[in-house]
Amino acid sequence: MRLEELGEFGLIARIAEAVGAGHESVVVGIGDDAAVIEPAGAGHLLVTTDACLEGQHFRRQWLTAQQIGWRATAAALSDIAAMGGEALAVFVSAGLPPAEEATFAEQLICGIHEAATEHGAALAGGDTCASPDRIYLDIVVVGQAERPWLRSTAQLDDVLLVTNTLGEAAAALHLLEGGLVENADGLPPALRHRFARPTPQFAVARCLQQLSQPLCAIDISDGLVQDAAHVAEASAVALTIQASRLPVAEACREVAVQGDVDPLQWALTGGEEYELLLAVPRGLVEQACALVEAEGVKLTEIGFVAAGTGVTVLDADGNEIELDRGGWDHFASH
Amino acid sequence: MRLEELGEFGLIARIAEAVGAGHESVVVGIGDDAAVIEPAGAGHLLVTTDACLEGQHFRRQWLTAQQIGWRATAAALSDIAAMGGEALAVFVSAGLPPAEEATFAEQLICGIHEAATEHGAALAGGDTCASPDRIYLDIVVVGQAERPWLRSTAQLDDVLLVTNTLGEAAAALHLLEGGLVENADGLPPALRHRFARPTPQFAVARCLQQLSQPLCAIDISDGLVQDAAHVAEASAVALTIQASRLPVAEACREVAVQGDVDPLQWALTGGEEYELLLAVPRGLVEQACALVEAEGVKLTEIGFVAAGTGVTVLDADGNEIELDRGGWDHFASH
Repeated sequence: MRLEELGEFGLIARIAEAVGAGHESVVVGIGDDAAVIEPAGAGHLLVTTDACLEGQHFRRQWLTAQQIGWRATAAALSDIAAMGGEALAVFVSAGLPPAEEATFAEQLICGIHEAATEHGAALAGGDTCASPDRIYLDIVVVGQAERPWLRSTAQLDDVLLVTNTLGEAAAALHLLEGGLVENADGLPPALRHRFARPTPQFAVARCLQQLSQPLCAIDISDGLVQDAAHVAEASAVALTIQASRLPVAEACREVAVQGDVDPLQWALTGGEEYELLLAVPRGLVEQACALVEAEGVKLTEIGFVAAGTGVTVLDADGNEIELDRGGWDHFASH
Repeated sequence: MRLEELGEFGLIARIAEAVGAGHESVVVGIGDDAAVIEPAGAGHLLVTTDACLEGQHFRRQWLTAQQIGWRATAAALSDIAAMGGEALAVFVSAGLPPAEEATFAEQLICGIHEAATEHGAALAGGDTCASPDRIYLDIVVVGQAERPWLRSTAQLDDVLLVTNTLGEAAAALHLLEGGLVENADGLPPALRHRFARPTPQFAVARCLQQLSQPLCAIDISDGLVQDAAHVAEASAVALTIQASRLPVAEACREVAVQGDVDPLQWALTGGEEYELLLAVPRGLVEQACALVEAEGVKLTEIGFVAAGTGVTVLDADGNEIELDRGGWDHFASH
């Protein structure tokens, strides 16, 4: 059955049925003019929106409908994790071609719902409309944090830490764009999961909220160097990244060797990693590492905060590294 | 300057500068991973998203960039008014063609910002990305209400009331689609304001929150009969609309006469009215009318709630009226 046969309200009814009751914080979910939320506790409320456009953020030949939904939702959830928060409710505005199979739309919503519930949030509402040619999604997440982590609080001599490993998303993109694999399911396992089913770092947020003070954090969605530049600007400091310390993923190195590419460039500029970059006072680093290690997450020291402006990347000898490109700008020609 | 020259972060910087400080409830606005909101008071939180796609919801030859922004935002704000709420923060995800003039994007955001602040909300964040051909907007509004008005609480013998007048949006669309006027600025004054700069009914929400109990409400965005059907379904009751009582706008009647169209059909099925349909216990009707009249808003009794299902439209003689179409379904072919 096509969407134009099922109709807008038929689709919404199916979504509401699949989603069910949801979350204790969601008093009224799908089906009214707005959702009604009653956050537990006395935390600050967090709201983020993340747009995701076919051809721009994903290609349908690379990902299943369910993977597209999960990935778009994980990207939005990641912003809440980067604020040191927890997710309460997810909303989706979806533009879908009327001639599309209804099952495709349902699988897409299924991926969104799965990513939401896997990370403690309800799918609580949204909007649907007809898009003549391409799919677009806007994922909204409402969350809360007792002490939000901002980009603007990096202090002189803070240590820069990054979660887990880097470079997988760029390596996966290299294989897909070069036609070396047909779709995400054809990627090596270590890259497949990272590309098709990325994990927002809520475990890290939860652990490190136990520290004596809120951290400075950003998620790596535009590329490490560019996201570091956002922190430098917001905090009015300089960030120095020591490239030799970067936790470049083994799977990324392997693909880079085969493609005769420098894996460091991928780790420095690759977008859609969804790891966290943290600026942590030196006195808290040991405790921070121990806390997240208990959750199976590795924190790696990759640099420091200094006086000045901007981001400097140094090699093992302390010489500055020039980058091919800074990161991702949606309006620029790449 | 084109957007591809200004760049994504250039545009965001300009928006942040234009928007300024904002609202007491918004602790952190534009420029971090998520906005941080601290709602005053003990109300329930409301969240709505409203998608708006070029060619589907608006045509650029009919509206200025600023009008497009206002209209999309008013549509989303209207959902919060229909919950009996007040707006706190507005977010916008915008897909924009990179070759577009930066001033167009700024005017668009200006219209969004104006609609937000005019109704007490801050523009607190969002996302931007490149859309190859058409503009899409997703407007998210976070609001609050002490006692939210739901669709599901209509009771037997409640009186159906509608705010102000109906039919202006459909009449405006008739003139624009027929090429009888070139754009919204060419519309007769009474229709121009309604089409290009619709008003979410926050004054009504504020007044009627003073009643002894929360009401049942929906905003008329898909068409009166279709929105009434949503109430009937959610409340498990039947709604009867007495067509002869409908407050059909004088400007709508004039256009209908000239076009040899029945203005009642427009009032019954025209979308994007953004008036409220309320189901009010008979004992509260007089007080409700007096409260909103003090704000310059008219409430008209247009029918009643009965046992059963669905919506029935009766003429002055009590005979059932057949409708050309029920209302708006985004996936259906119109």
